[in-house]
Amino acid sequence: MRVAVVSKDVSSKVAREVENFLVKAGIDARLTEINSKLEDYDLIISVGGDGTILSILQKIKCCPPIFGINTGRIGLLTHAEVINFKEELNKILRGFEVEEFMRVECLIDGESKLIALNEIAILSSIPAKLIELRVFLDDIEIEYMRCDGMLFSTPMGSTAYALATGGPIIDPYLNSILIIPVAPFKLAWKPWVVNPERKINVELHRDAIVVADGQNSVRVGVSNKIEIIKSKYPAVFVKHPSRIQKIAEKLCDIR
Amino acid sequence: MRVAVVSKDVSSKVAREVENFLVKAGIDARLTEINSKLEDYDLIISVGGDGTILSILQKIKCCPPIFGINTGRIGLLTHAEVINFKEELNKILRGFEVEEFMRVECLIDGESKLIALNEIAILSSIPAKLIELRVFLDDIEIEYMRCDGMLFSTPMGSTAYALATGGPIIDPYLNSILIIPVAPFKLAWKPWVVNPERKINVELHRDAIVVADGQNSVRVGVSNKIEIIKSKYPAVFVKHPSRIQKIAEKLCDIR
Amino acid sequence: MRVAVVSKDVSSKVAREVENFLVKAGIDARLTEINSKLEDYDLIISVGGDGTILSILQKIKCCPPIFGINTGRIGLLTHAEVINFKEELNKILRGFEVEEFMRVECLIDGESKLIALNEIAILSSIPAKLIELRVFLDDIEIEYMRCDGMLFSTPMGSTAYALATGGPIIDPYLNSILIIPVAPFKLAWKPWVVNPERKINVELHRDAIVVADGQNSVRVGVSNKIEIIKSKYPAVFVKHPSRIQKIAEKLCDIR
Amino acid sequence: MRVAVVSKDVSSKVAREVENFLVKAGIDARLTEINSKLEDYDLIISVGGDGTILSILQKIKCCPPIFGINTGRIGLLTHAEVINFKEELNKILRGFEVEEFMRVECLIDGESKLIALNEIAILSSIPAKLIELRVFLDDIEIEYMRCDGMLFSTPMGSTAYALATGGPIIDPYLNSILIIPVAPFKLAWKPWVVNPERKINVELHRDAIVVADGQNSVRVGVSNKIEIIKSKYPAVFVKHPSRIQKIAEKLCDIR
Repeated sequence: MRVAVVSKDVSSKVAREVENFLVKAGIDARLTEINSKLEDYDLIISVGGDGTILSILQKIKCCPPIFGINTGRIGLLTHAEVINFKEELNKILRGFEVEEFMRVECLIDGESKLIALNEIAILSSIPAKLIELRVFLDDIEIEYMRCDGMLFSTPMGSTAYALATGGPIIDPYLNSILIIPVAPFKLAWKPWVVNPERKINVELHRDAIVVADGQNSVRVGVSNKIEIIKSKYPAVFVKHPSRIQKIAEKLCDIR
Repeated sequence: MRVAVVSKDVSSKVAREVENFLVKAGIDARLTEINSKLEDYDLIISVGGDGTILSILQKIKCCPPIFGINTGRIGLLTHAEVINFKEELNKILRGFEVEEFMRVECLIDGESKLIALNEIAILSSIPAKLIELRVFLDDIEIEYMRCDGMLFSTPMGSTAYALATGGPIIDPYLNSILIIPVAPFKLAWKPWVVNPERKINVELHRDAIVVADGQNSVRVGVSNKIEIIKSKYPAVFVKHPSRIQKIAEKLCDIR
Repeated sequence: MRVAVVSKDVSSKVAREVENFLVKAGIDARLTEINSKLEDYDLIISVGGDGTILSILQKIKCCPPIFGINTGRIGLLTHAEVINFKEELNKILRGFEVEEFMRVECLIDGESKLIALNEIAILSSIPAKLIELRVFLDDIEIEYMRCDGMLFSTPMGSTAYALATGGPIIDPYLNSILIIPVAPFKLAWKPWVVNPERKINVELHRDAIVVADGQNSVRVGVSNKIEIIKSKYPAVFVKHPSRIQKIAEKLCDIR
Repeated sequence: MRVAVVSKDVSSKVAREVENFLVKAGIDARLTEINSKLEDYDLIISVGGDGTILSILQKIKCCPPIFGINTGRIGLLTHAEVINFKEELNKILRGFEVEEFMRVECLIDGESKLIALNEIAILSSIPAKLIELRVFLDDIEIEYMRCDGMLFSTPMGSTAYALATGGPIIDPYLNSILIIPVAPFKLAWKPWVVNPERKINVELHRDAIVVADGQNSVRVGVSNKIEIIKSKYPAVFVKHPSRIQKIAEKLCDIR
């Protein structure tokens, strides 16, 4: 088993400890940068917060199982803390199950440009300037508005940016996409939770920026054809014993 | 094909017209009361609004296909209007597809007491008096609050009571239950959209009333064990060409 | 100085202690029931929670200063806890300032029927049945909706029922009335914060119940003329050093 | 009476018509750019939408009465439409009343840097990156959050940006400031409506941008002391017969 130990901070003491711990256990583990070669490993140990895992996922399509050691604030996506990582790593060295979580992609003019575990956000690139757009579901217009932005969130993303815009918590295993605006200058609107097999299109009436997981972005304009799809490349994680418990705890932390 | 024509108003002129129309077309159709014998028909024609269909569904478990002629206000569940019902009935006499929509049941002390197409609502029975409860998902407490009530809504119900409490619109075919409070006296809370295979329990700290689709109700107290499950008896409707279109239109009507 | 010591529970040990403490200090204090004769005292010591103070206020128009000793849950309206009441009472025996808080009244067919420190709530009297109403501001219709209810809240009431329906926190000294629905079956609506000198009327399209501070109620129907006014009888309290601090703390408690 | 006719578009046909109309009526009217010399006029006729009036107000402290002819979308701040401007101008040439609306200023390190009729917005300058801040009211911390932004809105501004973030409609004549976040990554929060005489401070934990009415902006960082105050330079408008009517209509337009 080839294991990549990954941290945003290359001189992370915890990451070094993790590498040493694994090497001593006879594992082919190495401290590695965040890049697309991570696809070739059998397991990725992320040392950091949710942001680190999101950064890793920006680089990889076919995703090896990820195990997260939390050094950040909330760590919804992580599996262990600094104080118990050895114990938890020992467990997974004896074998582990994996679980997949849906990702979403943004197609611009037919080409996949961005992939996200949490959300594809179409946003204004200028503070306090509205964008204007229409959202179509199976070619039916379900929303027209001027707003700061529009989010297309996975269930996992319902505890990320979409949480801040008034969206519901969505069961992490529910096959669905949450469509929800940011600061809509409109009274009559609703978040939508839709089947990802439906065709989701956005028509822009002003230039905007598309941001994936707050990490990568692409500028788009009124002439671009924008489509949001469920990616065929899910994120893969070492199975967490109870996602509902984890979410319930996180919600307490960010009260 | 035995067809029941049903109206809350037994002297409804439209219902009589529908019956005559069908009989002339050679169909074994009869004007019928709302009762459990409706289960024995091959098709139910409801003449009325959504309330009429909800009343019918309160009486039946194994549901024949329902076709609704709207004489009410909004008619999300109906298929035709008074002005075009002959045309629409002619179409379905040539054959029709059906579609099923999830219903939810409320088990009290292990026994199924209520069934709903839209929502099971646990409510205060006294205006302006709070109830107090806990909600458990797979035995994990996800909510404790004092509130006017708590709704357990189907996707179909996301455009009913849950719409009024700040819930999202849920794709009518998405296998899910929406859990959302009514007027929670609490700042930190979220609607939840969960997989109906999960175990959903409610623990009451004060007496309350459970209401199914605003139609039937049962009083419950702190000693009762309350569970919400996906019913094995879905509602069956003549297939509507586009539920998304229907919802988008309805949302415009109730702006 | 004649002091009334008031508790909902006539055998309250704490209330008895308070009375003894005051009598020993040479004050003409007596344990008293909640009734309209409380108007004749120079100071009311309420022993209980916010509910006790609300009950007292239901009985009196011209309000002597109220000092609250909290034995309840949150106690936004109270001034001392059981553990420090002697210390706090000693302070006020040396002199105290008072402060007034606006109350609202509900006029039915021109006659004042209800008075409230927190809110006048027009509610459905049947769980899960909507009421239907119009709200007029200076004879201009600002709202038409079907809903569970409509609240007319004072600034003080913005941390009571109105908090549960999505309203803002309003500065307790801001001369204003908050108009906000409970579970409106409508997408496009807004809470309104208005000058209480404006004329506020409600037109009912279905029977309802009007409830003052969750304490007293009156049934109303479509033929009744309903008006909400700022009362000329404010509630009077011993001055609290910092209402903003008190609210900020309360909001933490009810997260 | 010296009258300035102002338009963002210097070649505006309507502005030219307005100027001609006034000159023919014997008024000293001239087509003028948006600049600080507008302070010297006795009346400003704005030809454009609300944006034009906001631009004018960015340039002036002591505000002559403004009369708006709407060529824009909604025109909450305007008094006439293109089709009826002659009739309405004739009325005001016979005399008019004025009304003042509160403006807010942002002091940075003790110096007034921005003034706004609608709102001072503290925002992230990078799409999808949160800012982090604390809000103090009379030196009491009432809010700590990570968010897209924080708005300090006048009553007039309650129908502008604050409308999009879930705020209430505030009576335009109510002396108050609305404090409300944009997309707060936090569950337990409330908008606050406060007395503008209170001291309002913001402590930044990350760099941000402060934007006045979506027009002018200033960058701020963690070392800056930020204060929001009611300006002593209100905006002055020709009196509108019914602001409530105007708002009620506008809310219908932006449903």
